[in-house]
Amino acid sequence: MEDFGKVAAATAALRYVSNNMVIGLGSGSTANIFIEKLANRVKSEKMKIRCVATSISSKELGTKYGLNVVELDSVDTIDITIDGADEVDDDLNGIKGGGAALFYEKIVAKASDKNIWIVDSSKQSAKLGSFKLPIEVLPIGSAHVYRYLDTELGLHPTYRKNKDESLLTTDSNNFIIDVDISNVSDLYDLSNKLIKHVGIVEHGLFLDICDTLIVGDAPIQIKHRKN
Amino acid sequence: MEDFGKVAAATAALRYVSNNMVIGLGSGSTANIFIEKLANRVKSEKMKIRCVATSISSKELGTKYGLNVVELDSVDTIDITIDGADEVDDDLNGIKGGGAALFYEKIVAKASDKNIWIVDSSKQSAKLGSFKLPIEVLPIGSAHVYRYLDTELGLHPTYRKNKDESLLTTDSNNFIIDVDISNVSDLYDLSNKLIKHVGIVEHGLFLDICDTLIVGDAPIQIKHRKN
Repeated sequence: MEDFGKVAAATAALRYVSNNMVIGLGSGSTANIFIEKLANRVKSEKMKIRCVATSISSKELGTKYGLNVVELDSVDTIDITIDGADEVDDDLNGIKGGGAALFYEKIVAKASDKNIWIVDSSKQSAKLGSFKLPIEVLPIGSAHVYRYLDTELGLHPTYRKNKDESLLTTDSNNFIIDVDISNVSDLYDLSNKLIKHVGIVEHGLFLDICDTLIVGDAPIQIKHRKN
Repeated sequence: MEDFGKVAAATAALRYVSNNMVIGLGSGSTANIFIEKLANRVKSEKMKIRCVATSISSKELGTKYGLNVVELDSVDTIDITIDGADEVDDDLNGIKGGGAALFYEKIVAKASDKNIWIVDSSKQSAKLGSFKLPIEVLPIGSAHVYRYLDTELGLHPTYRKNKDESLLTTDSNNFIIDVDISNVSDLYDLSNKLIKHVGIVEHGLFLDICDTLIVGDAPIQIKHRKN
């Protein structure tokens, strides 16, 4: 039952869903469990729910389970997005993008009134950095971005690859460069530097985005953003 | 001879090119004139020049004229990039992206030791804003970015379209939203807001990038960045 924490967190998140809502569907293993549970609840309670996906895979999964998945541009706002995280700290800031869907995930998160993250306790961390930070970069010029991350920021970058060693491309046909931020003290400063650097499309630092964190392992913990 | 200014500017820019350089090739009508003139000079003087393109069209044009066009990632640095501009002010800040190549143009410009802009006098402006500022946005979620530009920033956005009224897509398969910045007083503040907004890939404000401006109309003016 290694997924106990994920299942418990996904189940606990269901209580935040009510009829007629627009729900953002996260990406990744824990979010996938939530999508299945949401679909079951919507079916059994005959709820009217529209969903917005954060990746091609969450769109396909939601559709497969019979959820009404609509385009982000067809809704004015998203009531709640429920998503996983690769690592989250005590301030509810986190790293996302292990599944390379960080750009869509961030767009959907920013369009959401409330963001709930569901994780097991292995994702919690006093200081972010055990997980590598994914950075989405335009393929053209990516060697220059790589060099900036390496020599100017000292973040030990590595290109993310597929199993056959070819470079992984995202849903937007960009590359992912993973960097080590375990020695970075000011995450806001890093976020600013990254987003301003030409060629970087987006990065996986999600600061001041998560409103409520559900940690699934018993006893379940629910934490809310302080400010 | 309506192109006199463009031809004169492109010709004047040739003097900055010397043997063994890596040259960035701009995009647009004036840059296209330069590309042809550069190719002629390289051929007649048997120069060894490598070129990096800023768009698919400048790559094709350079190759057609026999220039050695290499990938940005294959060079460490670009010695000079010679490009046009849609509008430029007295501080040598400008708007680019009329040809929708702003993302590549900015990446190449940032990788260049020196940036020379070649324009005719119609592109000069005391205050930027006669030309619409192009903003490159990810298609997914673009309606939300549009609304941000419209209601929060008040910039009267319009999607750029093809002649058949379909939405134009860039070389990176993104959309272009053009905005009116004629009432914006602080361009640096606007640049910051835009680049930080999730879903915006890049924008056409080129601040502190142009080092030398060549205005082709007689008498030719050459201006250098002050700081």
